[in-house]
Amino acid sequence: MLAIRLIERKRDGGRIGPGEWRALLGAYVAGHVPDYQMAAFLMSVYLRGLDRDEMAALTDAMLRSGGALDLSTIAAPRIDKHSTGGVGDKVSLVLAPLVASVGIVVPMMSGRGLGHTGGTLDKLDAIPGFRSDLSLAEARAQLERIGCVMLGQTGEIAPVDKKLYALRDATATVESIPLIASSIMSKKLAEGLTGLVLDVKRGSGSFLTTLERGIELAETMIALGAAHGCPVVALLTAMDRPLGRACGNALETEEAIQALKGDGPADLMEVTYALGAEMLILGGLAPDRGSAIETLKGAVSSGAAAEKLKEIVEAQGGNPAVVDDPALLPQAEAIELFRATRRGFIAQIEPRAVGRGIIALGGGRATMEDTIDPGVGFVITVKPGDWVEAGEPIASVFARDESGLRAGAGALRDAIRIADEAEPPLALISHRVTREGVEAYAS
Amino acid sequence: MLAIRLIERKRDGGRIGPGEWRALLGAYVAGHVPDYQMAAFLMSVYLRGLDRDEMAALTDAMLRSGGALDLSTIAAPRIDKHSTGGVGDKVSLVLAPLVASVGIVVPMMSGRGLGHTGGTLDKLDAIPGFRSDLSLAEARAQLERIGCVMLGQTGEIAPVDKKLYALRDATATVESIPLIASSIMSKKLAEGLTGLVLDVKRGSGSFLTTLERGIELAETMIALGAAHGCPVVALLTAMDRPLGRACGNALETEEAIQALKGDGPADLMEVTYALGAEMLILGGLAPDRGSAIETLKGAVSSGAAAEKLKEIVEAQGGNPAVVDDPALLPQAEAIELFRATRRGFIAQIEPRAVGRGIIALGGGRATMEDTIDPGVGFVITVKPGDWVEAGEPIASVFARDESGLRAGAGALRDAIRIADEAEPPLALISHRVTREGVEAYAS
Repeated sequence: MLAIRLIERKRDGGRIGPGEWRALLGAYVAGHVPDYQMAAFLMSVYLRGLDRDEMAALTDAMLRSGGALDLSTIAAPRIDKHSTGGVGDKVSLVLAPLVASVGIVVPMMSGRGLGHTGGTLDKLDAIPGFRSDLSLAEARAQLERIGCVMLGQTGEIAPVDKKLYALRDATATVESIPLIASSIMSKKLAEGLTGLVLDVKRGSGSFLTTLERGIELAETMIALGAAHGCPVVALLTAMDRPLGRACGNALETEEAIQALKGDGPADLMEVTYALGAEMLILGGLAPDRGSAIETLKGAVSSGAAAEKLKEIVEAQGGNPAVVDDPALLPQAEAIELFRATRRGFIAQIEPRAVGRGIIALGGGRATMEDTIDPGVGFVITVKPGDWVEAGEPIASVFARDESGLRAGAGALRDAIRIADEAEPPLALISHRVTREGVEAYAS
Repeated sequence: MLAIRLIERKRDGGRIGPGEWRALLGAYVAGHVPDYQMAAFLMSVYLRGLDRDEMAALTDAMLRSGGALDLSTIAAPRIDKHSTGGVGDKVSLVLAPLVASVGIVVPMMSGRGLGHTGGTLDKLDAIPGFRSDLSLAEARAQLERIGCVMLGQTGEIAPVDKKLYALRDATATVESIPLIASSIMSKKLAEGLTGLVLDVKRGSGSFLTTLERGIELAETMIALGAAHGCPVVALLTAMDRPLGRACGNALETEEAIQALKGDGPADLMEVTYALGAEMLILGGLAPDRGSAIETLKGAVSSGAAAEKLKEIVEAQGGNPAVVDDPALLPQAEAIELFRATRRGFIAQIEPRAVGRGIIALGGGRATMEDTIDPGVGFVITVKPGDWVEAGEPIASVFARDESGLRAGAGALRDAIRIADEAEPPLALISHRVTREGVEAYAS
């Protein structure tokens, strides 16, 4: 295998075979293919694309580059959820304990935030003592015992993906659906899943802003799952505004805890129940969406869902008392109300601007090397379409100090637009995509 | 200037501005833009292309990255020839002394061979003592004194081109007309030319095998020359078989010397005179092709052309006696006739196979680090369309030893196809391209 021959072939629109993908990635991880050759290859892939067979082979090669969770001795359905990422997206923290409490085994592997989007791991890190750097053996033992684990991407899983992602990030080859889909699926397949539910965000705050690209990603992931015997269902959800009210790590963890205890914001609950219902149906634990949501609501009201989060936190070294008393989470030093600058309709709450505001407060990352302050962020209590009076409190800024308060207020002034009229926002959940096709989602 | 923004823009089909080209190349040479980012950028350029203004800006940025020959004090026409390269192409060695002997100033900068194609510098190196690594100051002094210099690409000229070429070679981004044209023109413009004649090879042994791509390159170079005030004329010539009889460094130098003394093969002379005539016309030293060729033939028969080669060799430290006695050139240890394997027509003499044969003999380079044996090669005395009898000598192999003879004979068996019928080869000179357009070439 000469890397340059594969670059030439992909450059000219040709196909790379399964053995060639394995050889190329193996040589890259071993350092025999230099970054500059892989960069030229990735740009060829970006511009020429991959067909379904090539994506399946690439996914397989990445999957085989590392270890995997062997969960074949666990009889229960093993189902995870993946989100393409957004602002205020704490769904994983609610969803994993919730569906685990009703019998789904959830081997959830998450990432850290980068740029304007947050990451589940950073939110979990806000819990005192919580350890997300489990080995595959530890994760497996915990799954057998309590049916849910929430861990970071270990070096054991698809190690080539980490090296490739860093290169893609530096060479403008991230936003390629074949590369995104293969990267996600290689990691998810390593979790030993029997099903996967995908939350594809759309709108200005999402990775793939258009509906068409979102559906293309969903269909690609569904095909990749099918090629590996893992059924995938996708929902397209709105990310033209933050999800829920809290934006910032500890603030979101607190909101997730409240949600598990029956006090979550309506939009967060609607998305969580919709995704959870798909997981229950995929796992054969509910016949239809209606009964699935009944089951999930029951787990919240009975306290079983919150109890499951306590078990997870305790199993991973964290202080389970945070579930009863979220004030044990890291707190901001300085808090200030943010008031409407004029009367009118909330016309827009721009998620990227909110995300940039969190970075400005010290609660997000511009580069992977940045450390973050878990306590800072925003709680935005209005939604697009709400009517507000001038001076009415519409948000709170949580900061480290006075200058943080000023930076946070400035970010909210950029993010929140108030006008005489407001266009309706995107439907919270607009489409459902399965192997059978795309359908409008009827709430 | 953030390199990643330029990669993104070119990836998406956008344009790079003149200041951005200068900044990008400057940062690359300084090591601030890593090879992997430049590789992704080059692949974007390969697949998205550059418009004429971008090519002119890139050429200008490469030209400005280094020094140049300031020949403005030389009143005579300063004209060079560039060939896209082939097998047996020793035209430069004949043409430069020939046109210099009739009054054209020729600041000829050449390269080394790589892969199946040879390089003029390697042929010059076969002359004992010859130095091609002159400084720009030395080259200028020699031009003022004898009107011709034949030197290698010095680090003073377009230094970024050397670094970029090595990267393109490793990332399958060589065969891009915008990158080829900008690279050639940046170096040629640094020679301070008043005109340039281009020999664009076509056919299986050439770089751009199709007529369409050859014409595209010619038109691109003509436009780039026009943008920099340097008129360019191109001839499309055949490289579906080697040019002349000798293939291999010292063998080709010997053939060039014989050509200057009036004893060159017909095809070599026809191409040399045609290119020389364009140089004389561009330089205003002849009114038309007929009278230009008369002038050139006169310089051969009078001995002035061979005398000019002696002057050049002597000025650059070589032994001028090689012109009178080519036996002073390096000689092969082992020589053997190669005979026709059957009777029939010579249907093909495949230049790439001949070029690979020279590499197998030790007379060419697979990588730029290889050292070469100047004495080895082939003299092929037949041409496509010739009728041969079985066992008739049709070539000689010049090798280092017995095993070289066997390798050489094997290469010729691959290269030379004898059949009952032969398709006519490509016209030796098929088209002439100028700013006015493309015209069929009438010999």
